[in-house]
Amino acid sequence: MTALTREQCLLLDQQDPLRALRDQFALPDGVIYLDGNSLGARPRAAAARAAEVVSEEWGTGLIRSWNTAGWFELPQRLGNMVAPLVGAGENEVVVTDTTSINLFKVLAAAVRVQAARDPSRKVIVSEASNFPTDLYIAQGLADLLQQGYSLHLVNSPDEIEAAVGADTAVLMLTHVNYKSGEMLDMAALTELAHARGALTVWDLCHSAGAVPVALNASKADYAIGCTYKYLNGGPGSPAFVWVAPALRDAFWQPLSGWWGHAAPFAMDPQYRPVDGVRRFLCGTQPITSMAMVECGLDVFAQTDMSALRTKSLQLTDLFIALVEERCRHHPLTLVTPREHARRGSQVSFEHPQGYAVMQALIERGVIGDYREPRIIRFGFTPLYTSFTEVWDAVETLRDVLDTETYRDARFHARGAVT
Amino acid sequence: MTALTREQCLLLDQQDPLRALRDQFALPDGVIYLDGNSLGARPRAAAARAAEVVSEEWGTGLIRSWNTAGWFELPQRLGNMVAPLVGAGENEVVVTDTTSINLFKVLAAAVRVQAARDPSRKVIVSEASNFPTDLYIAQGLADLLQQGYSLHLVNSPDEIEAAVGADTAVLMLTHVNYKSGEMLDMAALTELAHARGALTVWDLCHSAGAVPVALNASKADYAIGCTYKYLNGGPGSPAFVWVAPALRDAFWQPLSGWWGHAAPFAMDPQYRPVDGVRRFLCGTQPITSMAMVECGLDVFAQTDMSALRTKSLQLTDLFIALVEERCRHHPLTLVTPREHARRGSQVSFEHPQGYAVMQALIERGVIGDYREPRIIRFGFTPLYTSFTEVWDAVETLRDVLDTETYRDARFHARGAVT
Repeated sequence: MTALTREQCLLLDQQDPLRALRDQFALPDGVIYLDGNSLGARPRAAAARAAEVVSEEWGTGLIRSWNTAGWFELPQRLGNMVAPLVGAGENEVVVTDTTSINLFKVLAAAVRVQAARDPSRKVIVSEASNFPTDLYIAQGLADLLQQGYSLHLVNSPDEIEAAVGADTAVLMLTHVNYKSGEMLDMAALTELAHARGALTVWDLCHSAGAVPVALNASKADYAIGCTYKYLNGGPGSPAFVWVAPALRDAFWQPLSGWWGHAAPFAMDPQYRPVDGVRRFLCGTQPITSMAMVECGLDVFAQTDMSALRTKSLQLTDLFIALVEERCRHHPLTLVTPREHARRGSQVSFEHPQGYAVMQALIERGVIGDYREPRIIRFGFTPLYTSFTEVWDAVETLRDVLDTETYRDARFHARGAVT
Repeated sequence: MTALTREQCLLLDQQDPLRALRDQFALPDGVIYLDGNSLGARPRAAAARAAEVVSEEWGTGLIRSWNTAGWFELPQRLGNMVAPLVGAGENEVVVTDTTSINLFKVLAAAVRVQAARDPSRKVIVSEASNFPTDLYIAQGLADLLQQGYSLHLVNSPDEIEAAVGADTAVLMLTHVNYKSGEMLDMAALTELAHARGALTVWDLCHSAGAVPVALNASKADYAIGCTYKYLNGGPGSPAFVWVAPALRDAFWQPLSGWWGHAAPFAMDPQYRPVDGVRRFLCGTQPITSMAMVECGLDVFAQTDMSALRTKSLQLTDLFIALVEERCRHHPLTLVTPREHARRGSQVSFEHPQGYAVMQALIERGVIGDYREPRIIRFGFTPLYTSFTEVWDAVETLRDVLDTETYRDARFHARGAVT
């Protein structure tokens, strides 16, 4: 896409088949929100749903709501709404716990399955640039097991092929990189792993709701992901977990709490996992946070990932073209792949003063985020981001750079950054 | 306490120093709620707090709220509000994840500490009547480790002393039993465990907010507990975890997610735990569910556990006395200890038709719950339960039994029971 004028962007918005969906989100005035890849915007319906859960279901229904309001069924019911967005089947996904904890479950399961097949496979291969918590969880598991497991981190996706070998137990990858926005080829890498006897674990945090994902068609083995980014589930809303049906009943994952028991209310002192993906449940779930996940998923049910992908690529293409034209005199380096097949739904640039540039943008109402060491990151959510917003965001970036606003000392003070 | 008349109960309510606190809870009309030991009632403030989190903090603040609304600090800030209720110190508790998951963390840590001291200690001692998820988590950990760990379950607290020996790594107990309401002597059992070289893990699910707990004074080692029972945090609200300061930094627990990292936003590929109890955090927390925990804790800040314990014992004494007088012709057997020092804040009776009796009571608006095999269970929450309600609940029980209402077939159909 070439750089368009603002008028052309307005026309694109008028012709956008998804434009009506934006009205289902409550976006604050004066803000261009390009951080839906960190925390998705609030579906308007979430306010009423939260009030209903708190006042009616909790306040009036009290303990009865576990049955009458369907609280017990939420993890599976929401999982069935996530499933079509990631290429999974009915009753193959549950929404529960956090991404980190779900990763621990599936990684432990994968390692155990491999130990039964070939106990000499003791290496978990991943990328050094993977989201850190994924690496920390793998380190925690390896350290806990005390059985010689180790992590082999590659520095680039190009090195994955050489790294997966006879000692590899699991290839653990994030499908779309949180920092660069680069998307990996799930089917090809899974085929590579399987050809060499390894299992795959896919982190879909930056994929679910952002790009089409085909878990079953790619023959993936395990996947986890979050609901609070592109799925717009709310701050820290519970994560999801998927396990290939053929592997699902092979092992009872170690966080074997009562929600994964075949008969949770029989109060049997012996754990006996339920058949199916519900064995990846553990304890009692945060119902208010979980219930709002449905409001985000309801919006997805009105469109499909193919339509969202088309607009996503238009938005990111436009952003790249506008930045490269209008900010061409500034030291910005595109980090995100230009090739569509390798791009998620975000665009990242490096700038030597990236942190301060982003703070200046946020003060001007253009909310993206910053990632060490020098990356300014912009997420594009086709459900609610307009083409005109892309134009206006780039115009603000150009102004911040041209006027050197970002050199102000107050934009250099470091706080917690999300 | 002897059985009182309803008029005497009304007088007790008028004189109750805690009576004003009841107004801070939204209790539905026509219900006597004696199931706060399963799901606490809703503090009135929770509705406005949920609306604020969803509409303002999420909807308007968006990603900025991690800092501006203090979301990052919630686990520790709420932990500091739980601490005085369980005899813990400042910055010794965090609210996070679920009870089951927190148990996994502390059990893994305890086992590792013991492995460094004496690798021959491979047994986790607990009670067969412990809440099943605790046993399942221990089984899951033992199975995962593949290092010869096993569970030794005793059938009665009397057998604990004989069970703890030179092979015991951890004595894992629930302080107040979920079914019988029996309370164990934390200080004495911890002393016993320590004298024999074992560490203690205490589950406080039925203790926190229900009875005084003295973790530090009892020299306990690890504790976990839930916030959605007596603490009134909301359905499935996140749990808490406490670790004795001397043990806290001994081991980084295996669910080592980025929230427990010393510098979570440095995006370091190597895990490096933060000092202190925050290393028991893992991933991003469900903020809406977590924020409401504060509403429940705010009510506790207006009283103290000593005052609550006094009223709790009055309520349970009265309930026992009234049932034993007014229902004396029916086959009810008291399961809960009469001795104050051995009683939590609930009363359980066995009845041959316990399930149907409880269903009939619930239909009449007296909400307790049922636990296999024949136990009807009543929780008393001194923050909002009145003496008159105790009288009226027993009167309903008497009527259900005298009229044999519970023999109706519709009370015998089994659904999920909480």
